[in-house]
Amino acid sequence: MISGVVPVAPTVFHRGGDLDLAGQRRVVDYVIDTGSSAMCLLANYSEQFSLTDAERLDVTTASLDQAAGRIPVVITTSHYSARVAAERSREAQDLGAAMVMLMPPFFGATLQVVPEAVRAYFHHVAEAIDIPIMLQDAPMSTTPMSVELMASLAREIPHLQYVKVETPQAADKLRALRAAAGDDLPGLYDGEEGVTLIPDLDAGARGTMTSCMVPDVMGQIVRDYLAGDREAANQAWEQVLPLVHFENRQCGLRAAKVLLHEGGIIGSPTTRAPFGDLGDVTRSALVALARRQDALILRWAS
Amino acid sequence: MISGVVPVAPTVFHRGGDLDLAGQRRVVDYVIDTGSSAMCLLANYSEQFSLTDAERLDVTTASLDQAAGRIPVVITTSHYSARVAAERSREAQDLGAAMVMLMPPFFGATLQVVPEAVRAYFHHVAEAIDIPIMLQDAPMSTTPMSVELMASLAREIPHLQYVKVETPQAADKLRALRAAAGDDLPGLYDGEEGVTLIPDLDAGARGTMTSCMVPDVMGQIVRDYLAGDREAANQAWEQVLPLVHFENRQCGLRAAKVLLHEGGIIGSPTTRAPFGDLGDVTRSALVALARRQDALILRWAS
Repeated sequence: MISGVVPVAPTVFHRGGDLDLAGQRRVVDYVIDTGSSAMCLLANYSEQFSLTDAERLDVTTASLDQAAGRIPVVITTSHYSARVAAERSREAQDLGAAMVMLMPPFFGATLQVVPEAVRAYFHHVAEAIDIPIMLQDAPMSTTPMSVELMASLAREIPHLQYVKVETPQAADKLRALRAAAGDDLPGLYDGEEGVTLIPDLDAGARGTMTSCMVPDVMGQIVRDYLAGDREAANQAWEQVLPLVHFENRQCGLRAAKVLLHEGGIIGSPTTRAPFGDLGDVTRSALVALARRQDALILRWAS
Repeated sequence: MISGVVPVAPTVFHRGGDLDLAGQRRVVDYVIDTGSSAMCLLANYSEQFSLTDAERLDVTTASLDQAAGRIPVVITTSHYSARVAAERSREAQDLGAAMVMLMPPFFGATLQVVPEAVRAYFHHVAEAIDIPIMLQDAPMSTTPMSVELMASLAREIPHLQYVKVETPQAADKLRALRAAAGDDLPGLYDGEEGVTLIPDLDAGARGTMTSCMVPDVMGQIVRDYLAGDREAANQAWEQVLPLVHFENRQCGLRAAKVLLHEGGIIGSPTTRAPFGDLGDVTRSALVALARRQDALILRWAS
C-alpha cells in the first residue's frame, strides 16, 4: 500500500500554451527529490480538462520516461464513457502506471449518472486492468458517490483499494468509509491540497494527494502521524496551513505553477484559457507565504 | 444563410460499442434524402462526450466523404480549452465543414466560466476560422450565456451568425436576441428536437436543429412557416408533436437510434455506457408513435 503524500504534477505549458515537456520532466525530478511516496499525472489540478488525447499521451510518456521507475506514478483516466475510461486505464497500465484514479462518469450539468450505472462503469474499468484503482470523490463531478456505493465497489473489486475524498466534510466521509469498507478499502486519502489533513488523518486517512507546492512538508506530516507522533504532525500542519489554505481558497491549481516558475523549475506559470492566470496581488501574496515557509520548491533549482 | 431543418446525426455504434462507419454513412445518405438544409455531426445528441479525439476524426471524415458536398455539414467543436476548441474548429473547416457549433466552455459542476472569459474564448475560436459559427445555448453547459453576451459577440464577430437556443423558455430568449442583435445575428435556431418549434418560429427563429427522426416533416414545417403559411405549419407541427414530445421527454438521443435501427438504416441502436439504452416498453411506444406518423425513417431503407 502507498501511504504518505502523492503530489499532483501540473501540466506544464509554454507561455503560448504549447506543452513544455522539458519543464514537465523537471517537475518529475523535483517531485522525486521531495521524497514523496508517489506522484499523480493528469488530475484536475493538472488541467486534464484542457488537453487533447494526444497531449495526454505526451505528458504521460515524458513523465514516465523521466521517472524511470524511481517513484510510483498514478494516472488519472476519467472519461464519461466507460469504454474510453477502460481504454485509457489499460493504456496507462501498459505504459507503466502504478495506479489509475477516476472520478465517476459525468458530463456538464445534465449528464448525471445513476448509482447502478456508476457501479457498472467501475466494474468495466476494473476488468481492463490489474493495477490498483483509486476512486476520486470530487466536487467537480456532477455525479455523486455515496459511502455505500464506494464501499460496495471496494468489496466487489479487489484491486479497487484506494479512495480520495475531497468533498466537503471529508473527515466524516472517510470515517464512514472506514466503518463501511474496512480492510476492503485500506487506501483512504484526502485531497484538496491537504487543507483538511489532520482531521482526515484522525478519521483514518493514510495519505494525502496534494499539489507539488510543499509535498516534502506534507509527507513528513503524514509520516510523523502514522508513526504515532500526532503532536509533531499537527504542529507542522498548523505551521504550513496559512500557505496551503491560501492555495486552496485564493489560487487553486495556479499556485503550484506560480511557485514552480518562481523557483526556476519551469519557464512559465501559464494555464490554458479560459482558466486564467493569477493576478499580481494574489501572486505576490502566495510567493511571500511560500518564502516565509522557506519552501523547497523555491530553492530546489538553485 | 441556412434556414430550415438541420438534423443531428447520431454517432453510430456496433453492438459492442465500436464505431459503425458504414452505418454512419447510411445515416448521411438518409438525411440527405430527407431534404434537410444541412446536417450536424458530433453534437451532444451524437454522444460527443463519449468519443475519443481519434473517433471524432473518424466520424467526421467518413461523414464528410459520404456527404461529398451534397449537403452543408455543421460540426460541433466544443471543448473546455479555447486553444483546443480553436484547433478543432480549424480542423473542421479544413476538412470541409460549412459551420462549427460550440457551447461555452465548462467542465463539471465547478468549472463555470465568467462572461469576460467566455467572450475571449469565442474570439479565440473565431480568429482560427472563416466559416460561420453557431453558438449553442444548451442546458448541459454549467456556464450560462446571457442575451447581452451573445448579442455583443455577434456584433464583434462577423462570422458568428447563428445561435441555437435550447434552454427553457427558448422563445422569449430568441425574441430578446432578435431585439438585441438584429441583423448581426440572423441565424436564430431552436433545438431540443423541435419540441417548441412554432413558438420559436413566432419569436423569430429561422431554423431548427432536431434529431434525424422526422427532419422531412420538420423541414416542411419551417418552409411553410417562412413562406407565410403559419396555419399549415402549425397543423403539421401539432400532428407530429406527440412523437417529438415523446422523444424529448422519454427517450433523448436514444430515439433516433432506435428508429434508424427499426427502419433498417443502422445495425444497432447501441449507445455507449453509462448512457444506457431504452427499455422495451418505451422503445415499443416510440416505434408505435413513429408508425402512426408513417415516418420516412421507417420506410427509407426498404
